[in-house]
Amino acid sequence: MEDAPRIGPEKIIRRNQDGSLEYLQDDLTVEEPLEIRIGGKTLVTTMRTPGHDTELAAGFLISEGMIRERHDIAEISAADDNTVVVNLGPRVKVNWKDAQRFGTISSSCGLCGKTSVDAIRQNFRDIRAANVRIGVDVLLSLPDKLRGAQSDFARTGGIHAAGIFDANGNLKIVREDIGRHNAVDKVVGCAFLNGILPLDSDILLVSGRASLEIVQKALAGSIPIVAAVSAPSSLAVEFARESNQTLIGFLRPPTFNIYTHVERVILQ
Amino acid sequence: MEDAPRIGPEKIIRRNQDGSLEYLQDDLTVEEPLEIRIGGKTLVTTMRTPGHDTELAAGFLISEGMIRERHDIAEISAADDNTVVVNLGPRVKVNWKDAQRFGTISSSCGLCGKTSVDAIRQNFRDIRAANVRIGVDVLLSLPDKLRGAQSDFARTGGIHAAGIFDANGNLKIVREDIGRHNAVDKVVGCAFLNGILPLDSDILLVSGRASLEIVQKALAGSIPIVAAVSAPSSLAVEFARESNQTLIGFLRPPTFNIYTHVERVILQ
Repeated sequence: MEDAPRIGPEKIIRRNQDGSLEYLQDDLTVEEPLEIRIGGKTLVTTMRTPGHDTELAAGFLISEGMIRERHDIAEISAADDNTVVVNLGPRVKVNWKDAQRFGTISSSCGLCGKTSVDAIRQNFRDIRAANVRIGVDVLLSLPDKLRGAQSDFARTGGIHAAGIFDANGNLKIVREDIGRHNAVDKVVGCAFLNGILPLDSDILLVSGRASLEIVQKALAGSIPIVAAVSAPSSLAVEFARESNQTLIGFLRPPTFNIYTHVERVILQ
Repeated sequence: MEDAPRIGPEKIIRRNQDGSLEYLQDDLTVEEPLEIRIGGKTLVTTMRTPGHDTELAAGFLISEGMIRERHDIAEISAADDNTVVVNLGPRVKVNWKDAQRFGTISSSCGLCGKTSVDAIRQNFRDIRAANVRIGVDVLLSLPDKLRGAQSDFARTGGIHAAGIFDANGNLKIVREDIGRHNAVDKVVGCAFLNGILPLDSDILLVSGRASLEIVQKALAGSIPIVAAVSAPSSLAVEFARESNQTLIGFLRPPTFNIYTHVERVILQ
């Protein structure tokens, strides 16, 4: 055991294709707790990749149904590296008893303590029928555009991306996070803070799977079309069907699957 | 819009490589709520892929530090398709106030409401130094063995797998779930119910990323080596370093990275 190599705190050992070994500086995806405070009180602590924290906080509040309009937030700012303080508008009431369920949310969790899927859906506006349609060529162009806009993914491979595109396939917002739900909160929060919510003519593309919370957060932003590079879950499909959202999975050009509300995709 | 195709409740539309369209029966990964009851009281509702539910419940209790020894569970059984009832041994006390934070846990969450990483680590026995060592050839053989033992992955692509291997690379347990943390709870719970905990000479391999909760659940099962097909998070690396666990990421033969405690890998 005396001869066993050791790894310093910032180093890793990599085994290469040819079997050789290297000591490398590794660039891990950073995961740190963000505390979201309403006034002086902690609402939630969530594990996230630092960056765009006020957007994440705003997106979280929207996604939880706590705020809807831009004026529902009077002030939002970073108090320090890992704390965002939000002052809500005078008409917004926080149910602190209900909010206790948040506790600390891990980077892989976007749906802690929710009681039922129907209850979630009732928090949000319905998506209007076929308010937007996109062509197959536009759909097939999205994954490359998202990858091209990502900064960290290539470096570490451990990060999710979420992008908002218009119906012509133009990328409007892209955000990354170790938690896929955080990446979606960040794009929705960004739209909110810039006054461009609802995103009711747009498409959300996520780099991984489409779980229930992704589709739910898209609904919170009134996004009618959700596309994912990997598989959707059965609950995500059920939710999208009921909430009138188009759900596309395994978007890996030239192939994809459409799970719900195909009427928004121009197939011919 | 009149001519737009429609999708029936069990169908999807698939666009093939050649651009042709097909209506297919899709086999989605099922995600349903499992209620875990202690006596007559609900402890937690967790979203999971049905199957091996008593193992999932046992693994969850171990991972939460609520039980340690086989006799801590007097009785465990499925009350119906989506409910497991556990009767704890006479000396086990449940802190219900603390347990309220669980609420409903999504399929992507394995660490809801935890207060701090240090607090988590203190719940469990330390891993003994270098109690097991594995060769590079054994390590490189694991991903194929795990994939070979998976049933659902090839069909839907939306499911995680966790496998327990001994130091010779023999697969002891494999479980699948839409939530990666559930798959780990299931393998640890299976070992517990079969009286083979602690797994202190074994290796855990997970099909996706290694987030903090994966390494933490491995520690709950006293597993000294954790390998992942994708990236670890920074907190997972930090946790593994402190808890004396070997953490391997991007295990994609012939390459891999070692992040912590390389002394358990025989590199030459």
